[in-house]
Amino acid sequence: MMIVMKPTASEEDVQAVIERIESVGARAHPSRGDEVTVIGAVGDLEHIERLELQGSPGVDRVVRILKPYKLASKQVKQGQRTVLEIGGRKIGGDHFGLIAGPCTVESRDQLLTAADAVLAGGATMLRGGAYKPRTSPYAFQGLGQEGLRLLAEAKERTGLPIVTELMDARDLEPVLEVADVIQLGARNMQNYALLSEVGRAGIPVLLKRGLSATLEELLMASEYILKEGNESVMLCERGIRTFETAYRFTLDLTAIPVLKELTHLPVVVDPSHAAGRRDLVEPLSLAAAAAGADGIIVEVHPDPEQAICDGPQQLYSDDFSRYANQVRAAAAVAGKAVLVDA
Amino acid sequence: MMIVMKPTASEEDVQAVIERIESVGARAHPSRGDEVTVIGAVGDLEHIERLELQGSPGVDRVVRILKPYKLASKQVKQGQRTVLEIGGRKIGGDHFGLIAGPCTVESRDQLLTAADAVLAGGATMLRGGAYKPRTSPYAFQGLGQEGLRLLAEAKERTGLPIVTELMDARDLEPVLEVADVIQLGARNMQNYALLSEVGRAGIPVLLKRGLSATLEELLMASEYILKEGNESVMLCERGIRTFETAYRFTLDLTAIPVLKELTHLPVVVDPSHAAGRRDLVEPLSLAAAAAGADGIIVEVHPDPEQAICDGPQQLYSDDFSRYANQVRAAAAVAGKAVLVDA
Amino acid sequence: MMIVMKPTASEEDVQAVIERIESVGARAHPSRGDEVTVIGAVGDLEHIERLELQGSPGVDRVVRILKPYKLASKQVKQGQRTVLEIGGRKIGGDHFGLIAGPCTVESRDQLLTAADAVLAGGATMLRGGAYKPRTSPYAFQGLGQEGLRLLAEAKERTGLPIVTELMDARDLEPVLEVADVIQLGARNMQNYALLSEVGRAGIPVLLKRGLSATLEELLMASEYILKEGNESVMLCERGIRTFETAYRFTLDLTAIPVLKELTHLPVVVDPSHAAGRRDLVEPLSLAAAAAGADGIIVEVHPDPEQAICDGPQQLYSDDFSRYANQVRAAAAVAGKAVLVDA
Amino acid sequence: MMIVMKPTASEEDVQAVIERIESVGARAHPSRGDEVTVIGAVGDLEHIERLELQGSPGVDRVVRILKPYKLASKQVKQGQRTVLEIGGRKIGGDHFGLIAGPCTVESRDQLLTAADAVLAGGATMLRGGAYKPRTSPYAFQGLGQEGLRLLAEAKERTGLPIVTELMDARDLEPVLEVADVIQLGARNMQNYALLSEVGRAGIPVLLKRGLSATLEELLMASEYILKEGNESVMLCERGIRTFETAYRFTLDLTAIPVLKELTHLPVVVDPSHAAGRRDLVEPLSLAAAAAGADGIIVEVHPDPEQAICDGPQQLYSDDFSRYANQVRAAAAVAGKAVLVDA
Repeated sequence: MMIVMKPTASEEDVQAVIERIESVGARAHPSRGDEVTVIGAVGDLEHIERLELQGSPGVDRVVRILKPYKLASKQVKQGQRTVLEIGGRKIGGDHFGLIAGPCTVESRDQLLTAADAVLAGGATMLRGGAYKPRTSPYAFQGLGQEGLRLLAEAKERTGLPIVTELMDARDLEPVLEVADVIQLGARNMQNYALLSEVGRAGIPVLLKRGLSATLEELLMASEYILKEGNESVMLCERGIRTFETAYRFTLDLTAIPVLKELTHLPVVVDPSHAAGRRDLVEPLSLAAAAAGADGIIVEVHPDPEQAICDGPQQLYSDDFSRYANQVRAAAAVAGKAVLVDA
Repeated sequence: MMIVMKPTASEEDVQAVIERIESVGARAHPSRGDEVTVIGAVGDLEHIERLELQGSPGVDRVVRILKPYKLASKQVKQGQRTVLEIGGRKIGGDHFGLIAGPCTVESRDQLLTAADAVLAGGATMLRGGAYKPRTSPYAFQGLGQEGLRLLAEAKERTGLPIVTELMDARDLEPVLEVADVIQLGARNMQNYALLSEVGRAGIPVLLKRGLSATLEELLMASEYILKEGNESVMLCERGIRTFETAYRFTLDLTAIPVLKELTHLPVVVDPSHAAGRRDLVEPLSLAAAAAGADGIIVEVHPDPEQAICDGPQQLYSDDFSRYANQVRAAAAVAGKAVLVDA
Repeated sequence: MMIVMKPTASEEDVQAVIERIESVGARAHPSRGDEVTVIGAVGDLEHIERLELQGSPGVDRVVRILKPYKLASKQVKQGQRTVLEIGGRKIGGDHFGLIAGPCTVESRDQLLTAADAVLAGGATMLRGGAYKPRTSPYAFQGLGQEGLRLLAEAKERTGLPIVTELMDARDLEPVLEVADVIQLGARNMQNYALLSEVGRAGIPVLLKRGLSATLEELLMASEYILKEGNESVMLCERGIRTFETAYRFTLDLTAIPVLKELTHLPVVVDPSHAAGRRDLVEPLSLAAAAAGADGIIVEVHPDPEQAICDGPQQLYSDDFSRYANQVRAAAAVAGKAVLVDA
Repeated sequence: MMIVMKPTASEEDVQAVIERIESVGARAHPSRGDEVTVIGAVGDLEHIERLELQGSPGVDRVVRILKPYKLASKQVKQGQRTVLEIGGRKIGGDHFGLIAGPCTVESRDQLLTAADAVLAGGATMLRGGAYKPRTSPYAFQGLGQEGLRLLAEAKERTGLPIVTELMDARDLEPVLEVADVIQLGARNMQNYALLSEVGRAGIPVLLKRGLSATLEELLMASEYILKEGNESVMLCERGIRTFETAYRFTLDLTAIPVLKELTHLPVVVDPSHAAGRRDLVEPLSLAAAAAGADGIIVEVHPDPEQAICDGPQQLYSDDFSRYANQVRAAAAVAGKAVLVDA
């Protein structure tokens, strides 16, 4: 940690910082330049962090030298990438995962038709929401336990592992009975109670980036899960909030190569929620795959016009095979081991 | 609701939209211009909203005519502003509230010293956190139930109503025993389970705006509380995330007059978390009060250098009286009924 | 144009809006709902726009039905895409352009080495800056006219058309002697004097999106050029400013399919300036090509470590052929007619 | 300057950075920690900056210790604040300036009526645009030289110094004949040719912050003017672009205290363009004044309903005296020497 003092900092300000650093058993190395003083702080990082020197009198900036996340950082695994194996499907490293299915479980017929289609198109997992976070309290909130039951049926029928969202720690038990991967939504990325809970449950987690979360915050959120001993975490870019109003969110594909440098965890992209429009889903999927994403989670529906939720962004299940081939071709350009035209 | 079609929309696209509108019992009024067609949809708003026509083939934009929030909107109360009365202290309308106290409850001595100081300076409520949301799982997470016990003691001693944060619905019961106002943090603004829970509890709520939440989303979040029959909600602007890195968050003071136009609920500002630096807290507090805020929630500590959490942004309790007088002077310029130099 | 009144608007507010609409010879069609009144305004769009009704008393929102740009919009060309032919190289439609070369012209040797390499790798145009916009007045500002002279030599040697930046209308004449395409930088996207000047010059223009410009503003800026009778405009996405600090800018690849829907003009992507780091340039280039970009403009240098400007983001010229093959493979997935392994 | 290496940086990466630092005559001080190496670079800052080490292989971050602006920084003046005296009116330090007048000069009658009203209300300068930057090439672009002539008349009549915008360096001469302060608009904040030109002209400049410019970039832009020997620069916050769509721009009032710490230059706020709505102008003006702004530049029109440009945001000239008294009351709370009820 380095503390850059302001040019206007007094000697008392400098001394106060040094004393605080030393008060937690760390060592302070002041370096007095012509214009500003810089103080290096060496010792137990957690103790120094807790001093929260940023904003102290005379302090211009606190520069962290080490990353605040530990278990998520790449070094932990000496440069090796985590490959998750879920129900026999691998994701991460050279393995590209294609998670597909309806936004929301609406009915037995809808779910099974979608599940059959995505299986036929070569999807590696089936997604579907039983509990839905909605901006409006007046909107459809999901089928709940009935939705979970239908997911169990789809899993038995297709053999596809199930990815489904958990919003409330009190629903953990029934969700665990069906889910192979628990999805945590963007709005819950910093719901720390929930993060710790799924960490303790030990189930693979797909953690979505918050709408305005930095990559560092996303990694810190994953750290809440990893710290409980659960190493099976996928990170998911799903669009961030910017000033642009011509489309719903700005899909941040730079996050893919940057996250792959910072962490060993697989990085997945959700083009459906970012775009909010079917016609944007394919170009964004190809872009994500070409940029090196480890997987894509995409919404597919047999009859999107009749969908209860997010219809306009769901792909037609009839078109899924063609789409999936295109995505695999793009992933192949990025060096993933995929069979094109599976 | 108005659906603006794209110039390239086909007649089939137009018909499909009309049919979907009519399928929920609403009426469609197409208006065909030289270049584009606009379709008005009249009927049950919730039904039409659920169609999610935005993003449908040929649809350029869906323009909502009515606001999606109902209970939070100003008309509900025919232009009257909600005034909350909490432990005898009013906030809202002409009444300016000053909520002050330490970021985190750290010890009996720290809390009681701060409580005495803010009482003496004319604060109307005491704030203090027993459960703390932290970006890092390795940071101090609050004293928990012991913190609540100390808040109860401070309340008994000073008579000040208590504002404290709830992060996990499973802690609701003990928090309710002490709190006069439950604070929901920015990261939990869209934790819908928690919103509904405090709604049902019927206790006054201070709801903080998410880091990248629009005002409409903030109002929709309040709607989750109001819908449970709990009308005692204060909205709190606490800084939004922008590209600027010279300070922590960008305090959005335009939100004050805009929210006061959109809703009858009181609007409070938290300058401490927005700024992250003590020297910015006073100018931002004066700005908020002068812009017409109904109250300020500010952090005060007897010895910020020794604070476990957010020390650099906490005001010195010794300086609180002077600060409070300045804030009241600014609120008076904005027309609030405050006694300057209380 | 539709004017949505506030629920609190008075009848006088409504009448005032109607009168203003009629004052410019347009017709007003009020539609009074239970809660709000909506007024349609039909007539000369420019006249109605000039009324600037947004923000008038009682007005909630003004909803534009038609796009404010005309010449840039897709309909002008009845759905046909503009294909530019520059020095025999096509860009737009099915044609993918690869514009490459050093950030800044530094020396004869540097420029010619880079030019030879990009020619060998299959680039279709050569880029190089003689005038450089720099945040700091103390930074290198480009070789100016000497740089232009060297570009002329590189053009003669390689036959590649030249893309170079113009920052000041007073330098137009010498730049026109060399340039086949004039680049207008992000910071000058709304330099209206400059836009009109290059419009009148009739030369192809590569117009970069401003750091926080919406797509609509980018199209309006292109309209300044098109309106002078110059139809040869390429739009360039080069990263927008967001809250994320882990990398320089957020490359907005959603802009590609969205712009291709809104306009007939070719859409080009600059991954070098967005990323600011060489290791991100290739994944972002592949993503852009896979998303359907009509071309890429990328920085290449024979010895980036010695570059005067933006060294860390420039590709090694030795590596350019391999890179270019990868980019073409990604463009082929998106349906562009490119020879892979050219 | 400190260069923080990545944990994965090789010894070659470290050596390459050291060599590049030494290649410009600076000294490199590597400090090898357990996990990462940090290299201090001491010497001529400009030379080191030009190396552009950010993004080099193995480099995680480059941390600037010193600010990149020199003349704008506070230390230059040893903590003294610049007070500009323009036509006998002071602004900066304890002096609060109130610059008011119409958005655009439309007619003799309009301008003189507005000028009389703002003089009567205690404004210290008169604003009015003769050249107008417009997003649309089809919108009114200002009266040009005729507008300048009318401003000259208003100046003679009222004695008020004139603030007017310059957009094109080729108009400098006629503008200099009338203007006491040249305004540079947000879209031209990084029009470096224009900045240097007004720097050389030696006239006071009001420099508006770009829509997405950081405070550091604003200061660097001012440095282009200061470097030409022109010390008379006011910085103007006028709203930044964020994700919020409920109003036009987000007025960043945190910029006021932060800029006042970073620079000796006066800081002025433009609430009119930020808000775009008359009803927001007063609360934002009070907030700006209470936050310690050195002045406000506000739009006032005798008949905003008939304004050619930005009517809905212009204050009624009839109401200006009352408004100005309110603003002065807020400035007085912030410690400015103003006569309330002037």
